[in-house]
Amino acid sequence: MNYKMMGKFMGRILTVEAVFMLPAVLIGLWDREYAVVGAFLLSIAIIAAVSGLLSFLCRGAKTIFYAKEGLACVGLSWVAIGLLGCLPFFFSGAIPNFVDAFFESVSGFTTTGASIMPFVEGVSRAVLYWRSFTHWLGGMGVLVFLLAISSAGGKESGFTMHLLRAESPGPSVGKLVPKMKKTAGILYLIYIALTVLDLIFLLCGGMGWFEAICTAFGTAGTGGFGVKNDSIAGYSSYIQTVCTVFMLLFGINFTCYYLILIRQVKSVFKDEELRMYLGIVAASILLITWNLRGYYDTFGETLKHAAFQVATIVSTTGFASADFDVWPGLSKAVLFFLMMMGACAGSTAGGFKCGRALLVIKSTMRSVRQVVHPNKVQAVRVNNHPVDEKVLQNTNAYLAAYIMLFALSFLLISADGFSLTTNLSAVAACFNNIGPGFEMVGPACNYANFSMFSKLILIIDMLAGRLEIFPILILFSSATWRHR
Amino acid sequence: MNYKMMGKFMGRILTVEAVFMLPAVLIGLWDREYAVVGAFLLSIAIIAAVSGLLSFLCRGAKTIFYAKEGLACVGLSWVAIGLLGCLPFFFSGAIPNFVDAFFESVSGFTTTGASIMPFVEGVSRAVLYWRSFTHWLGGMGVLVFLLAISSAGGKESGFTMHLLRAESPGPSVGKLVPKMKKTAGILYLIYIALTVLDLIFLLCGGMGWFEAICTAFGTAGTGGFGVKNDSIAGYSSYIQTVCTVFMLLFGINFTCYYLILIRQVKSVFKDEELRMYLGIVAASILLITWNLRGYYDTFGETLKHAAFQVATIVSTTGFASADFDVWPGLSKAVLFFLMMMGACAGSTAGGFKCGRALLVIKSTMRSVRQVVHPNKVQAVRVNNHPVDEKVLQNTNAYLAAYIMLFALSFLLISADGFSLTTNLSAVAACFNNIGPGFEMVGPACNYANFSMFSKLILIIDMLAGRLEIFPILILFSSATWRHR
Repeated sequence: MNYKMMGKFMGRILTVEAVFMLPAVLIGLWDREYAVVGAFLLSIAIIAAVSGLLSFLCRGAKTIFYAKEGLACVGLSWVAIGLLGCLPFFFSGAIPNFVDAFFESVSGFTTTGASIMPFVEGVSRAVLYWRSFTHWLGGMGVLVFLLAISSAGGKESGFTMHLLRAESPGPSVGKLVPKMKKTAGILYLIYIALTVLDLIFLLCGGMGWFEAICTAFGTAGTGGFGVKNDSIAGYSSYIQTVCTVFMLLFGINFTCYYLILIRQVKSVFKDEELRMYLGIVAASILLITWNLRGYYDTFGETLKHAAFQVATIVSTTGFASADFDVWPGLSKAVLFFLMMMGACAGSTAGGFKCGRALLVIKSTMRSVRQVVHPNKVQAVRVNNHPVDEKVLQNTNAYLAAYIMLFALSFLLISADGFSLTTNLSAVAACFNNIGPGFEMVGPACNYANFSMFSKLILIIDMLAGRLEIFPILILFSSATWRHR
Repeated sequence: MNYKMMGKFMGRILTVEAVFMLPAVLIGLWDREYAVVGAFLLSIAIIAAVSGLLSFLCRGAKTIFYAKEGLACVGLSWVAIGLLGCLPFFFSGAIPNFVDAFFESVSGFTTTGASIMPFVEGVSRAVLYWRSFTHWLGGMGVLVFLLAISSAGGKESGFTMHLLRAESPGPSVGKLVPKMKKTAGILYLIYIALTVLDLIFLLCGGMGWFEAICTAFGTAGTGGFGVKNDSIAGYSSYIQTVCTVFMLLFGINFTCYYLILIRQVKSVFKDEELRMYLGIVAASILLITWNLRGYYDTFGETLKHAAFQVATIVSTTGFASADFDVWPGLSKAVLFFLMMMGACAGSTAGGFKCGRALLVIKSTMRSVRQVVHPNKVQAVRVNNHPVDEKVLQNTNAYLAAYIMLFALSFLLISADGFSLTTNLSAVAACFNNIGPGFEMVGPACNYANFSMFSKLILIIDMLAGRLEIFPILILFSSATWRHR
């Protein structure tokens, strides 16, 4: 293992984290909450010290590294970011228990939005800013940000490629343009532009600056932390509709936006994953609207709630406009299905991803066809291109790892004695980076009642879900740490 | 498609079914229930007529056939067996609704044991015999029986191999001995011997002949239909313990018994799947016993109930000794996990199977190791033998098909509006051929409240689970029915 290179990277990443805490200090000063300012300054000092120490210890790192180091580096970095990012919550007293603070921080960075805070309206704005900003930073990825702004990793190295691959959601994120640094830059520019657009629309609806910025962060990262106790439920229909549209937009593969920018609109609308995603969204909204007839006063209101919940769950955001836990069985089943599915690869959304599901469906259909015509070579085709067999194998391996981790987490958190639905949906909501589940972890409840042990399991799930399992799984493999 | 060959086979299979209805006629005559005798005679006449017609229409079939015909033949045969096997339930008036009767019949043959009958104690013994016997016949398979007793398929053809493969549970059933016919015979001899042994133990416990035979059928096929309203709960601890032990025994790969017979005991105890199965069983019993402390009067009673429920669920039998739906969260989570897992390949049990899970776990661990050492060729090894990559791919494809069918069925039956837990566990219990699930389909309840549409979906699930998906999936593929 090239520990020095890994340490060097982690030092830089922590610097980014410390820098992004500075706005919270300004907000605290503006609000004259000096205790909170102190908490942030202390956190920044600790992070800076750790970062400095890492940089000092790991100076002169060799630039030879392998895939395993890339993955392990991403996994460890995220653990470190979560661990140090929770310090302001802890020091400020907003979350007095350290494991709870760690849970909230990881939930933020992984864009899960599962909270252990029952009330947020009394919490200082500096803390709320940082809580929502973790969504935004985690959404596109801290390492991707680092790649975009620095020349880290020197030339176009395999390391950079591995970092980008490991941190970007979905199986298909590759190079938009030949240079990795430029790809990372383009992704962040699109991300920033869409976030600003969302912010403008929210401001037009009369939302205050602070709330609009936090809501835009939560929407862009598909995170879901709100700044109101009732999330988005208290806002106007206009604001709810803006959120619905932007949650869906942030669930689309960012490559599509890049293609639109370079005027290849046609190929965007032919994209099979996008069609599948939009098809699932439309079908789910129609089904739930039909199923909810009679629940709300008007058809318009029913449609609005159905669309909002479908958008919030499929994009794995987790904002709430209504308590879907009291909806009828079919609606809940559709939402549970969407929880597992998630949105498009290469977006900020979590979940298994439509693109992967498409590959799994197509390769299963191929298996059936192969029984019928065993001697015919049959490739799986997506967007009219044959898919590499290696990709199909990896997708199936991902499914296997997904199921295994899901089953294990489910068993472990069941020790707390909650209901099957609570346990299943808690794992589903954390693993797929959504936030709210059903019953005890429904939109009107939170994760505070789980034991410390279960919270640690759910933290691992959130990280595994955000980083697509392998960067976390590799940390638990003895082969990773063994000397050659 | 070689329709004639398929028709010829189906004709023979239906003859087997008709012949095995004759004992029910004798029981009916003995009990002087002439209406029931009439119902069985009418059913036998119809089955014989269909069988005769098929044999007449399909005379002179060519002996050239492909894998797809083998699979489609198995799939269609099971639909036909279920459809015609439900006639006695329908004609006798025991189940007045035809879809319900079809559900009960398929539930019997697939060894699911999911019932729509709330009370069975008033039902005639002839009907109860047939209901339990379907478990026994379905457990090892009707086509395997046909192979064992006849020279169907002529020489050692690929067709015979495909039939045996398609109908025997688990990924690994191959040839015990070079001749397929002999393999089928050995499997059935072991099956009969174990059933008789079970019967003797039950009779020693003072159970009546009729009840003992039906219970032995239900245990051997890992089915779960009982002849008492409270299943096995009313019997003595001795009887419950006998059932526990034999349910577990019928969950073991029959190849193990063959190896013991030919004195290769050592290789049996080294078998990784068997070790995994026994390990899971032991761990589950201990965990549930610990979790249930205080629920029952004595430690012995707690252990007995824990062992019985673990055995009944992991072997996918579905007898009940206690209402596990009122047990605490952890116990229910363990049982839900066991529902999906199932027992060993090559047994009469359903579920995903320990052997497959072992392959999935090992190949996922290999994926992690491959990231760490990308240039090292690493084979997945089971029982110290490298596993063919094709087998690993098929296992992952099976997992994918399993998940897809599970998700689709879950969504479809959710239209009835029941709870998430009811819907999830109903699909789990039918797809894995168990029987009871949780809440609305718990051990104290039944499937009568589902709509006709949901029952048809669950029928497809039971068949897909018993035949390991592909023989059923192939029936829905247009490629199967297209002319070349």
